[in-house]
Amino acid sequence: MIPSSTSCSSSPLALAAPAASESRLSAPLQGFVDYSQTEQYAFAIWQKTVVAVYERFGFSPLHLRPLERLAALKGETENQKQMFGVYRTDGQIDTGLALPFDHTVPLALYIAEQAGYRKNCKLPYKRYDVGLSFRGERPQVGRFRAFVQADIDIVGPSLGLSADAECLCALIQALQELPIGEFRVSINHIDIVKGILSLVEIPEEFHAAILRSIDKLDKKSPEEVKEEILQIPDLPLTEAKVLELLHYFTREDLSSLSDSLFSTANPQALKGWQDLQTLLELLSIMGVDRSFFHIDLRMVRGLDYYTGMVFETFLQDKPQYGSIASGGRYSNLVGKFADNLSQVEGVGGSIGLTRLFELEGNKSLSQRITMADVLVGYRTVEQQQLAFSIATYLREHHYRVDVYSGKPNVKKIVTHADHLGVPFIVIVMDTSAIAVKNMYTPRETKQEPDVSSPEEVLEKLRSFSSIA
Amino acid sequence: MIPSSTSCSSSPLALAAPAASESRLSAPLQGFVDYSQTEQYAFAIWQKTVVAVYERFGFSPLHLRPLERLAALKGETENQKQMFGVYRTDGQIDTGLALPFDHTVPLALYIAEQAGYRKNCKLPYKRYDVGLSFRGERPQVGRFRAFVQADIDIVGPSLGLSADAECLCALIQALQELPIGEFRVSINHIDIVKGILSLVEIPEEFHAAILRSIDKLDKKSPEEVKEEILQIPDLPLTEAKVLELLHYFTREDLSSLSDSLFSTANPQALKGWQDLQTLLELLSIMGVDRSFFHIDLRMVRGLDYYTGMVFETFLQDKPQYGSIASGGRYSNLVGKFADNLSQVEGVGGSIGLTRLFELEGNKSLSQRITMADVLVGYRTVEQQQLAFSIATYLREHHYRVDVYSGKPNVKKIVTHADHLGVPFIVIVMDTSAIAVKNMYTPRETKQEPDVSSPEEVLEKLRSFSSIA
Repeated sequence: MIPSSTSCSSSPLALAAPAASESRLSAPLQGFVDYSQTEQYAFAIWQKTVVAVYERFGFSPLHLRPLERLAALKGETENQKQMFGVYRTDGQIDTGLALPFDHTVPLALYIAEQAGYRKNCKLPYKRYDVGLSFRGERPQVGRFRAFVQADIDIVGPSLGLSADAECLCALIQALQELPIGEFRVSINHIDIVKGILSLVEIPEEFHAAILRSIDKLDKKSPEEVKEEILQIPDLPLTEAKVLELLHYFTREDLSSLSDSLFSTANPQALKGWQDLQTLLELLSIMGVDRSFFHIDLRMVRGLDYYTGMVFETFLQDKPQYGSIASGGRYSNLVGKFADNLSQVEGVGGSIGLTRLFELEGNKSLSQRITMADVLVGYRTVEQQQLAFSIATYLREHHYRVDVYSGKPNVKKIVTHADHLGVPFIVIVMDTSAIAVKNMYTPRETKQEPDVSSPEEVLEKLRSFSSIA
Repeated sequence: MIPSSTSCSSSPLALAAPAASESRLSAPLQGFVDYSQTEQYAFAIWQKTVVAVYERFGFSPLHLRPLERLAALKGETENQKQMFGVYRTDGQIDTGLALPFDHTVPLALYIAEQAGYRKNCKLPYKRYDVGLSFRGERPQVGRFRAFVQADIDIVGPSLGLSADAECLCALIQALQELPIGEFRVSINHIDIVKGILSLVEIPEEFHAAILRSIDKLDKKSPEEVKEEILQIPDLPLTEAKVLELLHYFTREDLSSLSDSLFSTANPQALKGWQDLQTLLELLSIMGVDRSFFHIDLRMVRGLDYYTGMVFETFLQDKPQYGSIASGGRYSNLVGKFADNLSQVEGVGGSIGLTRLFELEGNKSLSQRITMADVLVGYRTVEQQQLAFSIATYLREHHYRVDVYSGKPNVKKIVTHADHLGVPFIVIVMDTSAIAVKNMYTPRETKQEPDVSSPEEVLEKLRSFSSIA
């Protein structure tokens, strides 16, 4: 039970949006996007773009339930994720449910249920999910509490490297089709990292601590990282050994490592290296230039979770804003929820769409705020029926058509078309005089002659399109 | 603060899914859909279908924030909607936010903020929203606690009847394009109802109580409803007057009412009647047959909320399951949240997509569970590169292509193609022998000759499509 004295009304509002001026009910909520019509349109086009690429790669939409058991999301280890739990306002009763902080655990639960318990799920399964994730944090500037992630995953037993290649390629092509700045993928492989740790003879129990330090090489100097490693309690390593370790992780030219590191003497590292080479070959066949990739052994984040290749993606001119798309290969997720699926692995990744739109969305903004291709209007209500005939005819011919629904007034219709940024406008002036205009051509051009039937309107619109 | 003793762990789980066998974390949650892969695919196609129709009518997507202030959702009158409130699991802190129970209040908040406060919103605005709504009820059989609604609305000042026509037509065409049983729209107009009440001289303070009784005419006999009305305390009506009232509401042939009711002596009823006639004319121009409509004066639900036409939609063979799509004209919504927008009205409607899928979704189920048109596989890893070349070439030619990512094995690939219900399959047997098959033609047909290049694969696939 949640004491009713603390729910709703004034104090939670102040908490959610602390600024005094924001007390109105419609005011922005900190941590939630607050898009204008222009941004709404641009963001919708982004989502459609990403979905089209994902489907081109054979991924299918999977809509998971929007709430999950808090116990499932927390996991055995009571992870530190801050979440939004959900209670029933009627009686203030906790439901034990929460809003998911990502799409990966809900995916695992879905596969566990459908494939593990009901044996009613075909694997490998390729799914995408462009939807919301939540962080139950206190409101703070610059942190999203709800954001759209565009996930893809392939889940199944014995997944080949082709699965990794498909996921990476789909993510990169989706990013390529968005109007964003240049980006590059940093890629690494758990087996190479483990190979190095084994070559330098670092006992397993120190791996996690050492990798946490290695992960800081993008922000700290090798000297600083060396000092940090040497301060790990009980670490049985000489300074020379630590230098040897850092030597591997800081080399820019990895191919020169091939002889020493990637040899049959170190089969795990060799396997990881070969896997990355195969992956890059497949990506090259799919038309992704090698220059999009940077093998970066220092990128060891999430290596406690991933079990094969792992990647992050950075905007070339904004690396400081962090990864815009990341993922990798994992093997232990579904088995946690269904004993009989321990052999099921997964590979996937996610574009942080809300975050990326915040950084690069301004490049997509235009005058346009409507999906309509054509706005149809009429001078007076007498022309309403003809206007609807025209709209219907154009819709039958695959145009997306808006009929102006304010008071009939030619000037207002033209102004509204400008506001919408709609490409074409059709105004019924009289039953035999229909004006058809291309809004994207300069207004100074001489008055276009009017037409007089839906068929002629269509013909004229098509003549615009063939010019454009 | 929410006492931590009651949150998460065991008891809420039992609450959410009471059956003992359902204690696993992945088990279905009562009130939430639980779609198999087949259902996922069919439901995704439904959503795409509805979105395509809405866009054809010039509606644009509007993604509202997923949480709103509970105070805004509750409204001044503390409405009786049961909602899901949201707290932060870290510290059990109530946020004052809740999951919306429909898309209408969030739309009003959006318009109030963007148009009212920021003056940064172009009206009229035509928006659609195919997304989730929530009911914070206790779990019970047959009741959804989260469901997808497919909303459209036109919001702006001085909206003409064209707005009502556009919304109704878009909703009907969306329903027509879904593979569901026959349906019919019951339509009414607040002005006709008010005109009747005024003709029978019923004082305003009794309107609500009387309409509540009238609303039961679809389930109770006129005699029973008459008795119910006569029992309204202090009602100054004779039995004869009540019979006169019921006479209007129970007439099947409305045109015969035209003389008495829809006359200049009763301008409000006349106006409502004329509006409905205009609306039906516009719909007829848009190709919607008059037989889809049934003017039903007894359909008075929501007339305290709507201010013009109002409609509900019933499956012809399942009327008892209630309305599958409803809506109407409203005028007082946005003004509640922004004083300067009291003149903004709206008209809209919504298809209860989850509910409708529950009733009629089985008509859409097929073998197919994938968006991919083609599954590409290879006999051994030696043919992997050629397979990827083919997949890439087909994607460039607008096919949606899945590359099989399990262990290479021809039999498994064919079985998987069967599982997916994918239309076409391409298997690289050898560098010069590529099998291309149409999965929808009978297997008995003689072995198709193999091809040997991506171009030939494309040509062969196109030959299948031209047959299909």
